[in-house]
Amino acid sequence: MAFENVEPGLRVAPAGRLARAEWEQIAPRLRERLLAAQFRLLEADFPVILVLSGEDRAGAGEVLRRLFAWMDPRHLEVHALGAPTQEEREKPALWRFWRVLPPRGRMAVFVGGWTTQAILAEAERGEKNGRGASFEQRLAHAERTERMWLADGALLLKFWLTLPPERLERRLARAKRGVGALHEGELDWALAERPKAFRKLAQTAREATATETSPLHVVEVAQRRRRDALVLGALADALEARLDGEPDPTAGVAPAPSPAPPAKGAPRLADCDLSSRVPEEEYEPRLEKLQRRLRRLTARARHAGLSSVVVFEGWDAAGKGGCIRRLTAMLDPLVYSVTQIGAPTRHELAQHYLWRFWTRLARPGRMSLFDRSWYGRVLVERVEKLIEPPVWERAYGEIVDFEEQLAESGVIVHKFWLHIDPDEQLRRFQERERNPLKLYKITEEDYRNRAKWPAYEEAVGEMLSRTHRPEAPWSVVPANYKYFARLHVLETVARRLESALGG
Amino acid sequence: MAFENVEPGLRVAPAGRLARAEWEQIAPRLRERLLAAQFRLLEADFPVILVLSGEDRAGAGEVLRRLFAWMDPRHLEVHALGAPTQEEREKPALWRFWRVLPPRGRMAVFVGGWTTQAILAEAERGEKNGRGASFEQRLAHAERTERMWLADGALLLKFWLTLPPERLERRLARAKRGVGALHEGELDWALAERPKAFRKLAQTAREATATETSPLHVVEVAQRRRRDALVLGALADALEARLDGEPDPTAGVAPAPSPAPPAKGAPRLADCDLSSRVPEEEYEPRLEKLQRRLRRLTARARHAGLSSVVVFEGWDAAGKGGCIRRLTAMLDPLVYSVTQIGAPTRHELAQHYLWRFWTRLARPGRMSLFDRSWYGRVLVERVEKLIEPPVWERAYGEIVDFEEQLAESGVIVHKFWLHIDPDEQLRRFQERERNPLKLYKITEEDYRNRAKWPAYEEAVGEMLSRTHRPEAPWSVVPANYKYFARLHVLETVARRLESALGG
Repeated sequence: MAFENVEPGLRVAPAGRLARAEWEQIAPRLRERLLAAQFRLLEADFPVILVLSGEDRAGAGEVLRRLFAWMDPRHLEVHALGAPTQEEREKPALWRFWRVLPPRGRMAVFVGGWTTQAILAEAERGEKNGRGASFEQRLAHAERTERMWLADGALLLKFWLTLPPERLERRLARAKRGVGALHEGELDWALAERPKAFRKLAQTAREATATETSPLHVVEVAQRRRRDALVLGALADALEARLDGEPDPTAGVAPAPSPAPPAKGAPRLADCDLSSRVPEEEYEPRLEKLQRRLRRLTARARHAGLSSVVVFEGWDAAGKGGCIRRLTAMLDPLVYSVTQIGAPTRHELAQHYLWRFWTRLARPGRMSLFDRSWYGRVLVERVEKLIEPPVWERAYGEIVDFEEQLAESGVIVHKFWLHIDPDEQLRRFQERERNPLKLYKITEEDYRNRAKWPAYEEAVGEMLSRTHRPEAPWSVVPANYKYFARLHVLETVARRLESALGG
Repeated sequence: MAFENVEPGLRVAPAGRLARAEWEQIAPRLRERLLAAQFRLLEADFPVILVLSGEDRAGAGEVLRRLFAWMDPRHLEVHALGAPTQEEREKPALWRFWRVLPPRGRMAVFVGGWTTQAILAEAERGEKNGRGASFEQRLAHAERTERMWLADGALLLKFWLTLPPERLERRLARAKRGVGALHEGELDWALAERPKAFRKLAQTAREATATETSPLHVVEVAQRRRRDALVLGALADALEARLDGEPDPTAGVAPAPSPAPPAKGAPRLADCDLSSRVPEEEYEPRLEKLQRRLRRLTARARHAGLSSVVVFEGWDAAGKGGCIRRLTAMLDPLVYSVTQIGAPTRHELAQHYLWRFWTRLARPGRMSLFDRSWYGRVLVERVEKLIEPPVWERAYGEIVDFEEQLAESGVIVHKFWLHIDPDEQLRRFQERERNPLKLYKITEEDYRNRAKWPAYEEAVGEMLSRTHRPEAPWSVVPANYKYFARLHVLETVARRLESALGG
């Protein structure tokens, strides 16, 4: 009794029955295996993500309760999210899942999940006028995100529980009578109100996201004990295989290619005119004018629900913090947030590296400013050899995908590289050392990093060319003269807000 | 130049000016002190909560930017929350603040804060028909919550920034022109649309929450440098005093008394008839009928947006997990969540003990089931002497207050104590030891706990009498016979849902 590979990415357990006697023989052993695997998992370095989707939500509930009865419930998290809240609708579709992703050593069960959500959003769009990412975009992001989690070590198991048509009908009739109410944007609603559309969308979703790397297990089983034996058996097998260190079947799989070829016109460090400056006397009046303009624009953006993400990267002492302070100088504290990114904490290291950025996006209608960012993956982590080349190599695509999701959900994305030359950096280091109030900003490491200038330059160049996109562009800002850099940054942000707000 | 105590709980910095020369003398030293204190704080065992409220939101923004310029922004969190989202409105008012509370060793700045939110909610209620907690209730909870955080060691500093009337008018005129839009439920909206009501409410709020334990610093200062010198000076003074281990001025203050005298009719262990049972043949049919009833009721509750919190406490092996599985057996996974509470993690220990419960309330319209709960504070932590007597002594009031906030926001709260006798417990322990699948549930510690039965009995008795409330009652359930206990629990939950849903 097992799943059969019917086509690449699709494993099906055909209908059938399991005799009670056989179940009673299988069950205790299966339970023992799951419990043992769960305790070993606590010490392991990968998370387990179990997805229970499909028409049979009641079945998912039963499998869940079996899991809770058999395993230690202290180490199980369940996320049955239902229709998204207003705030969740205004964020990229995967945000709500990222927020509750299990850390390494833990297991989480999702009832429904991202593919189901994409189907439901599309069914709902049929009812209303849609906006935001298209169905194909959502599926592509779901597929790439799964690959990304797998590449990061996650054990991902996806089940699709079906229900015989007559039972499904009975349940929907009951829901319509109000016994289990229909909620727009949820499974029962789509099944009852748009059954044909649902089936068609589910088929498309299956084709897009059930891949050899991340297969879908389809359970066409009405009998409870057979269904549980199949689902929990597959879980136990997969858990044990990973815990025993068997070769990970996904290890050899190439990461998803970057979703699109790099955009033309990526800025290059070599083209940056470091002598750029503004006449001293122009600085103050222009700065103040820009700050007032930004105050008006961010207030309008908040009113219009227009969010933005602005990333500041650059050489040490290039003036990132100073730019951010000038940018926010006149802003209402309600329209922006600033996140300063340092080395990840233990808590953050237990998650995928993008997790701490997904969970720090500001509320809708606001500007999220990042002082350093996810680009650390392809800069410091690459140059300092904190990760292996294939890991930073695949990060370009992952980052492009992340920013693309932001852009598709209506977020403005802009990225600045503040560029200075080594002499200017040295001057600023020495200035910091003379100022007791800035002394904490400078360490031995900053000097060591200077020796790696060429390696960083190479990494920056590759980052610019591979992650510059029309919807998430890079600006390389000449920052030897701080006044010039600040005006340039504020002007660029103001222009992007203006054009998104319609002038 | 400092704040003056004008009345208990109210410190005022009168208007005035600070000469530039004087500021230039003060500023570098103040900056140095703040920076040094911030680094010492990282190793300290208390959190810092800074609240910037009042009419002068632009002023709050300026103070914030000064903080960011002077201190290390990696160790500063800012929460400018604005009008609550729909989900936040359906939770107790303080939920959104609890979620982002800083852990020990960290500092967070709230722009606005809970008192401001209470004022705005009341101003908004004037516009609409109000529901939920009253203004007085919200203020009382705010005041008690502050006391609770203080008692737990938090350093709390509250500033109210005022603005000269003519400048306030200019800003509101600009907001009305749409340059900084008005948002219902936010400060500018209340100031512009309901100025008289706002002033009256602010006065009431000040009287209710500015106490000697937790004074309010009122800054009637238009000049920026004088305002910053006052606010940041007070912050530096308070931080240094605490870091230097000066006697905490709040240490001697009695905790808030329990918000109301204990309710009459609290159940007592001695009254529990442990011989209660049901005829064997009645169990299955009654159980199934109850499960179907609960399925209907939870679906209706979800539709009506009615949330509930159900707590399971009881002796080891009393059958809590079994009750929860029967209760949820037929429920849609979307209507409930189960949280199993074990020893707190390091991450959780860095927060107030109620934090991990506040952050685990299910989405609105759902049932949050807790297998063990916040009552650990007055049970295991008391009996095992993990905390001092004054700490568990004050927990009764804190817990009553927490549950009252849930009830006021419309949440049904019910608490079960599953009661068995020591002989029955021993039988179940031995049974667990014979079953390899349940062996993990039993440890040496469980046997050691048996020796403390009388101490636990005393703690349970006090817990029942001091936390039984009409809106959050305890049921003591005879659980020597599991069938009886399960039916009793399911029946009780069904009845409470029914009566809240109106039959």
